[in-house]
Amino acid sequence: MSDPIAIAAADGLPSTLDLDRLALASQQLIEAGQALDAAGQVPATGGNFSCRLSDRLMAVTASGCHKGRLTSGDILVSDFAVRLQGTSRKASDEARLHGQLYEDLPHAQAILHTHSRAATVLSLCHEGDTLSLEGFELNKALEGVKSHETAVRLAVFDNTQDIDALALDVRARLAADDNLYGYLIRGHGLYTWASSMTACRRHIEALDFLMGCELELRRQR
Amino acid sequence: MSDPIAIAAADGLPSTLDLDRLALASQQLIEAGQALDAAGQVPATGGNFSCRLSDRLMAVTASGCHKGRLTSGDILVSDFAVRLQGTSRKASDEARLHGQLYEDLPHAQAILHTHSRAATVLSLCHEGDTLSLEGFELNKALEGVKSHETAVRLAVFDNTQDIDALALDVRARLAADDNLYGYLIRGHGLYTWASSMTACRRHIEALDFLMGCELELRRQR
Amino acid sequence: MSDPIAIAAADGLPSTLDLDRLALASQQLIEAGQALDAAGQVPATGGNFSCRLSDRLMAVTASGCHKGRLTSGDILVSDFAVRLQGTSRKASDEARLHGQLYEDLPHAQAILHTHSRAATVLSLCHEGDTLSLEGFELNKALEGVKSHETAVRLAVFDNTQDIDALALDVRARLAADDNLYGYLIRGHGLYTWASSMTACRRHIEALDFLMGCELELRRQR
Amino acid sequence: MSDPIAIAAADGLPSTLDLDRLALASQQLIEAGQALDAAGQVPATGGNFSCRLSDRLMAVTASGCHKGRLTSGDILVSDFAVRLQGTSRKASDEARLHGQLYEDLPHAQAILHTHSRAATVLSLCHEGDTLSLEGFELNKALEGVKSHETAVRLAVFDNTQDIDALALDVRARLAADDNLYGYLIRGHGLYTWASSMTACRRHIEALDFLMGCELELRRQR
Repeated sequence: MSDPIAIAAADGLPSTLDLDRLALASQQLIEAGQALDAAGQVPATGGNFSCRLSDRLMAVTASGCHKGRLTSGDILVSDFAVRLQGTSRKASDEARLHGQLYEDLPHAQAILHTHSRAATVLSLCHEGDTLSLEGFELNKALEGVKSHETAVRLAVFDNTQDIDALALDVRARLAADDNLYGYLIRGHGLYTWASSMTACRRHIEALDFLMGCELELRRQR
Repeated sequence: MSDPIAIAAADGLPSTLDLDRLALASQQLIEAGQALDAAGQVPATGGNFSCRLSDRLMAVTASGCHKGRLTSGDILVSDFAVRLQGTSRKASDEARLHGQLYEDLPHAQAILHTHSRAATVLSLCHEGDTLSLEGFELNKALEGVKSHETAVRLAVFDNTQDIDALALDVRARLAADDNLYGYLIRGHGLYTWASSMTACRRHIEALDFLMGCELELRRQR
Repeated sequence: MSDPIAIAAADGLPSTLDLDRLALASQQLIEAGQALDAAGQVPATGGNFSCRLSDRLMAVTASGCHKGRLTSGDILVSDFAVRLQGTSRKASDEARLHGQLYEDLPHAQAILHTHSRAATVLSLCHEGDTLSLEGFELNKALEGVKSHETAVRLAVFDNTQDIDALALDVRARLAADDNLYGYLIRGHGLYTWASSMTACRRHIEALDFLMGCELELRRQR
Repeated sequence: MSDPIAIAAADGLPSTLDLDRLALASQQLIEAGQALDAAGQVPATGGNFSCRLSDRLMAVTASGCHKGRLTSGDILVSDFAVRLQGTSRKASDEARLHGQLYEDLPHAQAILHTHSRAATVLSLCHEGDTLSLEGFELNKALEGVKSHETAVRLAVFDNTQDIDALALDVRARLAADDNLYGYLIRGHGLYTWASSMTACRRHIEALDFLMGCELELRRQR
């Protein structure tokens, strides 16, 4: 195991970077991208992913790369305010949304943002600021859900290019509602988080399945 | 070939475990999981599978593992009342549904339970306690069906977390109707059984295809 | 190259079997099965395929095997009346439909019968005895079609288990209409033929795409 | 690196062929075909692709080959008027549409034409001569688009077998509208171009996703 190295965080406070943890995070992000690309959930260069590295740092995907073909060079280290550490590359435009979630949700260890067809279409069809998925056994794939009778709720936001403003809106929703499993941005995609990358991939797989079922149910009605 | 070993069943009666049969069952369960995952029928950690090992024992998948990435360590030996043999791991919550089927259906050698989109949606759309698939040539893929004019019927139950109660409901339906090819649980998935794992995989492949056709036909009408 | 061997055809007339041609046909049938299984067009043990071997013999798939996992042992030699040569295995129940087509269509060298969802559903939704696919550029993938303005027509028959009767109905339709590219059996699937296996696989790929487009167009209207 | 070789273009003007550039173009066209075939966008022998080689020459796929199984022998060198260089093979019937785009769009380095189900169906359902994709985050995958509020517009033409006439119609539309990202031909498919093959594959992946979303949105309404 490597020793963590001390690095100067962008706000002047000392931080440390555990290189073994970064290597593991990189591997997890690369594998998540391959699986989500195979599932059609990150078309073109859509989507971005991250892992928490510490209480101040995260590993996050670089801007503009195809998520199905990530290499370790596409994984950047950043503090939660997205002041990057030791790279000339640019993080995803939406990296601040990851940082805000790590700041507000201490249990979140991994965050996946995908652009599936179901998320894109359902977020545009659905009125109101919350989507509630109800009556599905697969709800139990989400951390903490013990029965299909427990609704799985996602916040829904209008799309914007003002990421800082959206991060504040997400913060306000999470403060008012501590039982959300993720959020949709209309015509854009899904953000979800969990206590490990394994759990987060299970969440994404379950939520995309559930949204696909919801769309099909609405067609049948 | 290994000798069968005597084991103490949980109800105090002696039983024997044929290790070669267990090894074969494990392999069949692992391969079924890979195929059903590739077909999108076991999202997240959904689904569970089993093989009969004797008139008292079954091999059944452990709780909480992804069915597309099973290893032999995820296959547990249990009696039909789900009192596990020699393991600290937990069987699927629904293992008793498998045990009940092996008790009631002596010809059943394998049981597959899947969570496909078609099964989830169709079970929620369909009113009544029986789904009848009619007029499809592929009905003939089910054991004993010789003509497309023979309806393939599935029982339909409301979902519940009370598995013991559901097992009793299934038992009552099977006693009243000896011509069912499986059952749906609403918003949850499909159970089907057959006289071998090969036949059971053929049943799942056919039933999922047929339910998909049925959903599309309902959209077209 | 092997010498052809003389064999006694079931009607007592001498025939010859070119072993090189049989080996090539076997390989083509195995590969077609793998491709069509990957495309979801031969679920369970659905579908059957053949190649013409001579003016009296064909290679045809055996009954009950999965078409995605064919081996050379699953390929049988039969005359067109389905009196098998040198095997205890049973040809597909529908082998006579292949034999009839080879008798009536001298240019047919390969026949593929598939059970896709599009073929199953569209054949059940469509009224009338002919399906006409019109206005698609991909019509030009069919042998002899030079413009999207040329309709591609398929005969449509009700399903039956009386294969001999169906073969006579097909014979009558082909005699009355020399411009059919295949036929659908309701709730069952598609038969198509071409002057080579390569062309026949192109026909299947195009026809399944076109039927999928047709279904989607009907949903949109 | 090889020296470029001088060749006589069909109009009598000298031209040069950079063999390294041709080798790279061939590799890119082969890989694009494999990816688009896996995505179901080039059924049968549908589609055709090209790369610009110089201000007078392009590499373009031959007529009648399956785009998922291209070899370097299927890549032809042609001037933009489709007078082929050093081959007895025939270019795609639609090669002139590629040449016209390279003549009119100096920044275009690669052109992909696909036959996806979404392009085929949406072009037939959509009335009017322009399809506008609006409100999708993935619009930003197109070169130059910075916000989901920017509409991505495609011209829509009726299908024809008169390729020279269609090329003139495309030329007129591009002259009148310098902000098109591609065009649809009704019942046929999509043409798009970009400043590199990488960008062009991203455009195709994004546009097919967006057209699929648009179709699903129209079903839900």
